Amino acid sequence: MTNAEKALKLHEEWQGKLEIRSKAEVKSKEDLALAYTPGVAEPCKLIAEDKDLAYKYTIKSNTIAVVSDGSAVLGLGNIGPHAAMPVMEGKAVLFKEFGGVNAIPICLDTQDTEEIIKAVRYLAPGFGGINLEDISAPRCFEIEERLKEMLDIPVFHDDQHGTAIVVLAGIINGLKVVGKEKENCKVVVNGAGSAGIAITRLLLNYGFKNVTLCDKVGILNKNTENLNWMQKKMMDVTNPDQLSGSLADALKGADIFVGVSAPGIVTKEMASQMNRDAIMFAMANPVPEIMPDLAKEAGVRVIGTGRSDFPNQVNNVLVFPGIFKGALETRARQITEEMKLAAATALAGLVPDEELSDENILPAAFDPRVADVISSAVKAHVKD
Amino acid sequence: MTNAEKALKLHEEWQGKLEIRSKAEVKSKEDLALAYTPGVAEPCKLIAEDKDLAYKYTIKSNTIAVVSDGSAVLGLGNIGPHAAMPVMEGKAVLFKEFGGVNAIPICLDTQDTEEIIKAVRYLAPGFGGINLEDISAPRCFEIEERLKEMLDIPVFHDDQHGTAIVVLAGIINGLKVVGKEKENCKVVVNGAGSAGIAITRLLLNYGFKNVTLCDKVGILNKNTENLNWMQKKMMDVTNPDQLSGSLADALKGADIFVGVSAPGIVTKEMASQMNRDAIMFAMANPVPEIMPDLAKEAGVRVIGTGRSDFPNQVNNVLVFPGIFKGALETRARQITEEMKLAAATALAGLVPDEELSDENILPAAFDPRVADVISSAVKAHVKD
Repeated sequence: MTNAEKALKLHEEWQGKLEIRSKAEVKSKEDLALAYTPGVAEPCKLIAEDKDLAYKYTIKSNTIAVVSDGSAVLGLGNIGPHAAMPVMEGKAVLFKEFGGVNAIPICLDTQDTEEIIKAVRYLAPGFGGINLEDISAPRCFEIEERLKEMLDIPVFHDDQHGTAIVVLAGIINGLKVVGKEKENCKVVVNGAGSAGIAITRLLLNYGFKNVTLCDKVGILNKNTENLNWMQKKMMDVTNPDQLSGSLADALKGADIFVGVSAPGIVTKEMASQMNRDAIMFAMANPVPEIMPDLAKEAGVRVIGTGRSDFPNQVNNVLVFPGIFKGALETRARQITEEMKLAAATALAGLVPDEELSDENILPAAFDPRVADVISSAVKAHVKD
Repeated sequence: MTNAEKALKLHEEWQGKLEIRSKAEVKSKEDLALAYTPGVAEPCKLIAEDKDLAYKYTIKSNTIAVVSDGSAVLGLGNIGPHAAMPVMEGKAVLFKEFGGVNAIPICLDTQDTEEIIKAVRYLAPGFGGINLEDISAPRCFEIEERLKEMLDIPVFHDDQHGTAIVVLAGIINGLKVVGKEKENCKVVVNGAGSAGIAITRLLLNYGFKNVTLCDKVGILNKNTENLNWMQKKMMDVTNPDQLSGSLADALKGADIFVGVSAPGIVTKEMASQMNRDAIMFAMANPVPEIMPDLAKEAGVRVIGTGRSDFPNQVNNVLVFPGIFKGALETRARQITEEMKLAAATALAGLVPDEELSDENILPAAFDPRVADVISSAVKAHVKD
């Protein structure tokens, strides 16, 4: 049986990867009178007077919604809300297993920005946080920003920020390995969608000075046509020399490449034009922008991918469980830029300097310290 | 410690009565590759081609949403979505414990009919059914009707139909006890909200000919002012003699009284004016319309309440778990009138004739046969 067949068979056996468990025992009339009527009226009355008490008496304390519209699911594209469910259920599994966070998948039957915002706003009262997932760019930017303004619970688009945080953590350690300074590095990010733009923003906030975004048309600059509003905004802070040309042109002399784009689009020839001691995260899934062996042959020194069967897996499962664990435990109302930077630094810090190497820049997904370290970084930056 | 204090303390310990459990084990990279990427893409691709396969591969197979806007919660009234959560969580506990159904509480931060309809429509893809809960009348009627037309999963407003089904079951057996025929009975339903109207409709569908609705203003008839659109509609099929007057007037000569109204509004004097061998369900919670001992003194023969500490508890927990259990197991797209009548008849049938008595007309909430009997009744009436 292939792995694909095995996965399908398991999904059929599970018939849904999640179930609800009751913490309240209901074996007698007395139990019923405490967990349900008339006893349940007591917490209701208190919350009606002070809705913050919802954190004390309800699942809001440790439950988030994983919300998608099915418009940009994995590498599968716009497959719609029904087909997105197995992914959102999987995400919920990981939230629970890695972070102890209860997550409920909600796949919305609308892809209209305003309607998604409204739906999330309406369903928010029962939840302690909203993890947005697999919503296509540029709608995802507006949806997240507007919801952050509206809601008093954290809203976090994992495709953007989870990815950006783990990439930054990998780069922090990659730079230690190759002995370069962030200020002097030329960075190329290929793929100007949600992940690429969030990675670029976080790298700039961290202190990188020279980041160039590329997309299918090649290098993006102020003259590039058909940019969306977010890409346009990025042109003010990226590509400082206003270069133009192809991805191959961008890679010439680059120190760092981050690909969140498409399989096999970087050739060995292109990789060999990068600066010495280059770092390359080829994160297209399941087939990377360039296979690690080819990149190695081209002289690239530190190579990461999204895959678990190569060294240096750059996987946001390292990030999102701890982010919400920390946010829920402190009732953070926002996931701030400081939290993201602190999370990346803390994640990088889990690999001691003496263990760092070309093929060891990030902790393993199953390292039991990961969620706690990320959650502590979040907690340290919660403002009242 | 009083029961109220005990309930509050337990709710604080639980800090939410539900948690998510993962059915998929994720202990290794291999597990991760099957439950999440890349393996998860397999069911996604199949569902994208045929969304009915969501029932085969996702939680839709056995998960419903319990949706409220917090506008009419228990006897507490319009306490809003945050304060409604403990009740919706409790409901979810009962769905699981009694019916094996996974239920997720969703409390909406809007009380606008159109917005509620939209929100439920949007979140429907991941669910196999929608249980509406504690939404005030008359909005609840429109919300349910419109959603039933729109969605291809069952939508069931439990305050209406769960209550109506258990009341009908109790009345079916009550009539056996007192030896009367439905066609000849004069029925008074007090409380013209969601429950009262649904009870009236189901009794009429079952074959009662003379049902009179009363509300705070007394007997409702075609000349009553300020009726909402649903109450107006009910005037065409109730109160055949177009009586007017007070609740006391309505009770004179009545065979059956069903109260879903307010504590203590029926006096002993009023109850004594009912027909001989009267049946009285005084279901206001926690204090009934008339206390059972008083009703007994007034000569009423069969007395039920909503409470577990008196005989004949008329409680919709007997109904809703089995309704959705049956609907989910057969992928019923609607809970039809036939299903409701069949459920009431089946529930009544659980008490054998030889065990029926003034104080034993309904099975106990913890009778393990209840959910299966209701679910079988639903299944027997599923149309393709």
